[in-house]
Amino acid sequence: MPTLSDRVVNTFSSPFRKYLPLAQEAKDNGIEVIHLNIGQPDFSMPIESMEDLWVDRQPFVPYGIAEGESALREAWIGYYEKFGVKLGFEDLMVTTGASEAILFTMLAIADPGEEIIVPEPFYANYNGFAQMAGVRLVPLFSSIEDGFPIPALESFEAAITTRTRGILLSNPNNPSGKVYDEQTLQSLATLAQKHSLYLIVDEAYSEFVYEDFRFFSSMRLKNVNDHVIVIDSISKRFNACGTRVGAIITRNHELHEGMVKYARLRLSPPMLGQEFARRALQLPAAYHDNVRTEFSVRREYLLSRLGQMTEVRFHAPEGAFYLFVQLPIDDSDRFCAWLLTDFSHQGKTVMLSPGTGFYATPGKGKDEVRLAYILDREKLGEAMDCLEVALSVYPGIMEKVLVPTL
Amino acid sequence: MPTLSDRVVNTFSSPFRKYLPLAQEAKDNGIEVIHLNIGQPDFSMPIESMEDLWVDRQPFVPYGIAEGESALREAWIGYYEKFGVKLGFEDLMVTTGASEAILFTMLAIADPGEEIIVPEPFYANYNGFAQMAGVRLVPLFSSIEDGFPIPALESFEAAITTRTRGILLSNPNNPSGKVYDEQTLQSLATLAQKHSLYLIVDEAYSEFVYEDFRFFSSMRLKNVNDHVIVIDSISKRFNACGTRVGAIITRNHELHEGMVKYARLRLSPPMLGQEFARRALQLPAAYHDNVRTEFSVRREYLLSRLGQMTEVRFHAPEGAFYLFVQLPIDDSDRFCAWLLTDFSHQGKTVMLSPGTGFYATPGKGKDEVRLAYILDREKLGEAMDCLEVALSVYPGIMEKVLVPTL
Repeated sequence: MPTLSDRVVNTFSSPFRKYLPLAQEAKDNGIEVIHLNIGQPDFSMPIESMEDLWVDRQPFVPYGIAEGESALREAWIGYYEKFGVKLGFEDLMVTTGASEAILFTMLAIADPGEEIIVPEPFYANYNGFAQMAGVRLVPLFSSIEDGFPIPALESFEAAITTRTRGILLSNPNNPSGKVYDEQTLQSLATLAQKHSLYLIVDEAYSEFVYEDFRFFSSMRLKNVNDHVIVIDSISKRFNACGTRVGAIITRNHELHEGMVKYARLRLSPPMLGQEFARRALQLPAAYHDNVRTEFSVRREYLLSRLGQMTEVRFHAPEGAFYLFVQLPIDDSDRFCAWLLTDFSHQGKTVMLSPGTGFYATPGKGKDEVRLAYILDREKLGEAMDCLEVALSVYPGIMEKVLVPTL
Repeated sequence: MPTLSDRVVNTFSSPFRKYLPLAQEAKDNGIEVIHLNIGQPDFSMPIESMEDLWVDRQPFVPYGIAEGESALREAWIGYYEKFGVKLGFEDLMVTTGASEAILFTMLAIADPGEEIIVPEPFYANYNGFAQMAGVRLVPLFSSIEDGFPIPALESFEAAITTRTRGILLSNPNNPSGKVYDEQTLQSLATLAQKHSLYLIVDEAYSEFVYEDFRFFSSMRLKNVNDHVIVIDSISKRFNACGTRVGAIITRNHELHEGMVKYARLRLSPPMLGQEFARRALQLPAAYHDNVRTEFSVRREYLLSRLGQMTEVRFHAPEGAFYLFVQLPIDDSDRFCAWLLTDFSHQGKTVMLSPGTGFYATPGKGKDEVRLAYILDREKLGEAMDCLEVALSVYPGIMEKVLVPTL
């Protein structure tokens, strides 16, 4: 029998989806599973964007341009003006979701065995893409106790070796909800410049910031054009996760040209999704004001419910739509699986993402879970009821005493 | 300034698209460029497949299932019955085009530095995906003079080392047009079994076979279930290249599960394209009978025109929609670029794919080009006029005498 490659055997399993078979079994047993495990919002698109998506064009779907359709690139560049960013046409390449943008970036900036520094916790699938690319992620820990601050510049300096090729983070941060200000980003960019590194900033959640926090796009950073790579996506922004449309934005045109080779290999991004994206990116800004208001309500509600639970620790998210929460549990993987296999409350249970997947350091995240506040308040209420009851009956509850913070 | 990775610098440029900037310049200069460089057919889909593609579903586009939507997998499994193939639900995984299927397969069966044997000429982008995966392609030459036969089993045996993980070919073959019979495929599969290798067969052109040739799906091969991997795509079959929907088919469920990890990392294949694919795969078989008739006419026409040119050598394709042609030229890259930069005939020129990209052996294909017979007969006529005149004025014509074969 032929064997599998070592790399596929060792590839990290996505924490968002690894327990889907267990969720299906629960559903088959008549239990309603409330999905807070994945950032799949429930808001609707203005219907104009879905109507007649293709019928006014030719009755087949040809290959497009490898770098993305020109009209979409122009719409995306226009969209970035709302963040005070002026882009040239060659600065933006369309990809098959941010997923592909991350993979192309890793392949193009680092050779196998080279390193990318990433503050943890981080978007879990960076782990898997790094494994596909043979790149080593070097994590810098930031703690829930301190509210997930960006690690000190000295920690970055100490982590930089001859193999380091870049620094990667998401802003707003998934899963911590941290929003980074201009000064923080500029200091990281200056550090990247000093060491001839790339600064890669994943801006998929740019529309989702709360209270007085403001999103600052890293494409506005000064004097570091060759160093900055922004990853973007329409998935969360327009509730269009399934269109698979993202982008790589950089003013480093040598890097852009290198990645175009990968783009040409896979021929073109999905054309139907691109047509959707082109329409969506031209929606008026008021559209997101409404969406943001709704997410703010949900966020407040979750903060209030979690604040009433004992020995549950979290930091109020400044952006994105996740809460990364410390629970009094022995093992978040065991707990998330148990919720699906051994627990229900009034015929319902909740699916969460175990925290371990959001770290590169083994052992971290064992008492943390990520939950996405992407459902309406009623469903969130049922999910919180489940969590509360679950924490009172889960056999792996730890008896340590934690101080909840808000 | 940060540098690029060695791997991106060394990555092969797609021969189908590397001269697109030159084509654009020619167009900017008012020259009509007839594209025979890429397998993008011109036939229309039955319009029912494009109407209301999404409006009867929810007004947003959520993530789908990583392995593909269940209804699409079922439709695809049903489609394979026309080739006498019975598949289980877990045998087929939907991918973002055959491109992703090839990449996932290479990553999952071979570690960096390991080898896959591939008869050359072969689908050019295998080169690039192998570079992305760090896998070495080991080419086995098959010559245009002999009509591109599959290399002798002894050649395969001689090429197998401890690093060999699989044998890869496309059937019908792109670019040679060769169609492999059951006996040929079974003998390769038996060889794969003997050496614990995978046999990977790319069946993207299964609907396009001519004269008395018949397509035989490798999923029908006997007693080699763990060894056979079929790559499929709706791109050519339904003129849906831009939907980006392909599949990996294998009865090796351990391998399937390994590749599901990669599928989950990139979350889901494009949902709009999947909905298109689901509808298209259920079209009546008569649809392809008509398409095939039209391609037969084009094929006959090109064979007749090329047959009248001196010192032009080719083998009549048995399947797919390409002709791989030997021309009396010094350098196919130079010739293909020259056609765009320095040549026009009656205000037109033709874009071809240089033969070099279809080989892994350096130096091969320098006097060969691939052309796709994907346009209507009038356009093909204009393209052949261009080629004929070009061969009479191109400054790099070689003076060797070749015997045309039909």
